[in-house]
Amino acid sequence: MNEIDTIRASILSRIKPKEPEKLKLSALADSLISKINAIGRAEGLDITAILVGSTARGTWLSGEHDLDIFIMFPPDASREYLEEKGLYVARKMAEQAQSSEERYAEHPYINAVFDGYEVDLVPAFRVASAAEIISAVDRTPFHNMFVLSRIKGLEDEVLLLKQFLKGCGVYGSELKTHGFSGYLVELLVTHYGSFMQALEAAREWKPGLKIDIEKHASIAHNDPLVVIDPTDPSRNVAAALSLDNMCIFIDRAREFMKKPGASYFSLRAVEPLNDSEFKTIMSGRGTSLIAIEFTAPDEVEDVLFPQLHKMEDSVREMLERYDFSVYNSGVWAGKKAVLVYELESAGLPTLKKHAGPQVWMEEHAEAFKSKYQGSNAFSRIYIHNGKYMVDIQRKYATAKKLLEAELPKCGLGKHVALSIKKGYHILENEQILKIKENNFREFLHRFFQK
Amino acid sequence: MNEIDTIRASILSRIKPKEPEKLKLSALADSLISKINAIGRAEGLDITAILVGSTARGTWLSGEHDLDIFIMFPPDASREYLEEKGLYVARKMAEQAQSSEERYAEHPYINAVFDGYEVDLVPAFRVASAAEIISAVDRTPFHNMFVLSRIKGLEDEVLLLKQFLKGCGVYGSELKTHGFSGYLVELLVTHYGSFMQALEAAREWKPGLKIDIEKHASIAHNDPLVVIDPTDPSRNVAAALSLDNMCIFIDRAREFMKKPGASYFSLRAVEPLNDSEFKTIMSGRGTSLIAIEFTAPDEVEDVLFPQLHKMEDSVREMLERYDFSVYNSGVWAGKKAVLVYELESAGLPTLKKHAGPQVWMEEHAEAFKSKYQGSNAFSRIYIHNGKYMVDIQRKYATAKKLLEAELPKCGLGKHVALSIKKGYHILENEQILKIKENNFREFLHRFFQK
Repeated sequence: MNEIDTIRASILSRIKPKEPEKLKLSALADSLISKINAIGRAEGLDITAILVGSTARGTWLSGEHDLDIFIMFPPDASREYLEEKGLYVARKMAEQAQSSEERYAEHPYINAVFDGYEVDLVPAFRVASAAEIISAVDRTPFHNMFVLSRIKGLEDEVLLLKQFLKGCGVYGSELKTHGFSGYLVELLVTHYGSFMQALEAAREWKPGLKIDIEKHASIAHNDPLVVIDPTDPSRNVAAALSLDNMCIFIDRAREFMKKPGASYFSLRAVEPLNDSEFKTIMSGRGTSLIAIEFTAPDEVEDVLFPQLHKMEDSVREMLERYDFSVYNSGVWAGKKAVLVYELESAGLPTLKKHAGPQVWMEEHAEAFKSKYQGSNAFSRIYIHNGKYMVDIQRKYATAKKLLEAELPKCGLGKHVALSIKKGYHILENEQILKIKENNFREFLHRFFQK
Repeated sequence: MNEIDTIRASILSRIKPKEPEKLKLSALADSLISKINAIGRAEGLDITAILVGSTARGTWLSGEHDLDIFIMFPPDASREYLEEKGLYVARKMAEQAQSSEERYAEHPYINAVFDGYEVDLVPAFRVASAAEIISAVDRTPFHNMFVLSRIKGLEDEVLLLKQFLKGCGVYGSELKTHGFSGYLVELLVTHYGSFMQALEAAREWKPGLKIDIEKHASIAHNDPLVVIDPTDPSRNVAAALSLDNMCIFIDRAREFMKKPGASYFSLRAVEPLNDSEFKTIMSGRGTSLIAIEFTAPDEVEDVLFPQLHKMEDSVREMLERYDFSVYNSGVWAGKKAVLVYELESAGLPTLKKHAGPQVWMEEHAEAFKSKYQGSNAFSRIYIHNGKYMVDIQRKYATAKKLLEAELPKCGLGKHVALSIKKGYHILENEQILKIKENNFREFLHRFFQK
């Protein structure tokens, strides 16, 4: 065996589902499907249950085997009918589950646990083509059919690429991760032909790359990577992928091709940072750290993280508007949400140079002069590079004072704004050590190490 | 009398030469001229002496009455002949002076003191028109003729505008001042008609303004103010005027028109800053002050100051290239030359974010990674906004260390470079107080107050 084959074999032995897992899953899926179909018949409903997702395609990573079972309604059913009857059937099923919970995407569905397996029971419309979908989830059965028609014999390649992307920390299209979805991985493998060919291709990727397997793209996309959905000419399957996560994959693909190894398939582990490590790191860097801590809104990650990232950007913008130079920022959420900023300095001189209008703009000059003339500024009004200037008192000489006074005025998402309104703390440098959660300390370690 | 007339009268009584001063000066000029002409006749030289400059035009400010006497040679004389014979005549004159000194502009001349008056004895060519000048000084007699033909009755207006510009600190075209020359003032007064009309016009000035009295401009100029020399279509009389000095005049003209007063005609006095005032000011501002002190090259101001200003710019550029934020800078020269910089902070974090190439530029990526991989940087190489990044050790974490190590590599003028090579000191904050010259302390006061 060559080096690559050895690595493949070793990784696959770890991630590829074994016979018992496969049998157990397919037995469970079959049983759930026939129970749903039986309920349909008993209630006189024109429904059929189908298994979709990676478990339907044989492309799930061992141990990560949530079942996605869709309850398909006729396309002429109304949305209300589908929601009412779909939920009715799902609830009846849930009665037999170990536990269950109603969730909401575009319409309600049920997440339940059967025999220790998580199962999503999702009502959807059985439309004739992907162009006619009524709800976003209606697309899934078409993805399923497309992949099933191409994937035979390539399942191992999908598993390897998924695991490689996990090792890079860029697998998953949720709004917390902004990475590669499972469907995107399947498309890349069928497009390029294998795991290694996908990596070979990625070495040459550039932002703006467009892959259109069916050559049917109908609109332009402005995302770093564009992979047109073979079942929907207007959709970019890679829309959630961020530029940096695309770049991480390009970089890791290059490195792997140069020097293959099993380590690429595992996410670099990071230890929680302890207090003394934190102090050593901070005194070595010479920067200032400031954190905003508040109660995390009780929302799912796909709602919470976009709001936290929006807040991260608004606050960075505000810090820079007030002359604080931001080196680095990050977001963490547990019960508390924490935004961390590394600053060149958390303090600035009291004096601030304030530029006014050009001297020859007489009207603006008048306004500027009457505002600052004789104010308790450090300097008279003077002229520099053709502009009026005055050295004034800086409004906020520390980042802490700025954030304490102005944070609520930042652009904030709805739930985060509500939470901030109830209160928040500004922590500086070693004060941040009062947050002790292991998971936060791991985040801090990554924040410094990258 | 209205308010303006009262002010005019009061200022003129102070600055307008009185009869005794006029008589004494013209007697001295007449006597020097006839002596020069006599020497010429005795030596068989075809020369004539003439009086030029403000004393020839009746536009000198009382007490500021250096005489400019030109010794005019025929235009077909050679440069060597003019220099040899011109200096011969001037030296013969100097024998009768209280003191004298040979100086060099485009060619040598003599500055001598007769009866307590400074007199420049300058050999020049008597060309037929300003278009035919051989040396730059040959232009002066044409300026003289042009002004004399227009200035009759406007002498008081010239005196008032000169004194107003002195009050603004922008009178004098030397390379230390970058202000308005006497000839420029005379042209402005004849062009606009009076002192008040010149001020009225200046209120509406904008950079890029062009005044071409003879409508004969032959080339384009890129200076803030362009006043085409009526005796030379290719020359801008206002070439030495800086944008800021032009703007100061615009601003002061507006203020004077709004609220006239005698104070505009006196330069704001400034006291030398004492040690305790300095400490109070610095602790209030919260900034850092850093000074470069070295032996001033023994050169005239028109040679020294352009080099000091060039150094001021080079050093500012270097400080900013190394991430120090410069709020303010200034230059002072006595026996020592001192450059002063006010910084947001004279210290920066040890950590510096260093951006590399875009991830998809594979060749540059390789070079960057092999340079920083495993170096003793703060971080791994990571990806941000599509670029490789690494957090490295900053080369100079203090401005003092930077200047101590890199100052000689700055772009420096010839004489300043030689002086810096012999040694220089970097002074920080209160160390600057070891420079005790009153004149430096006044400069410091202005530096803070503006």
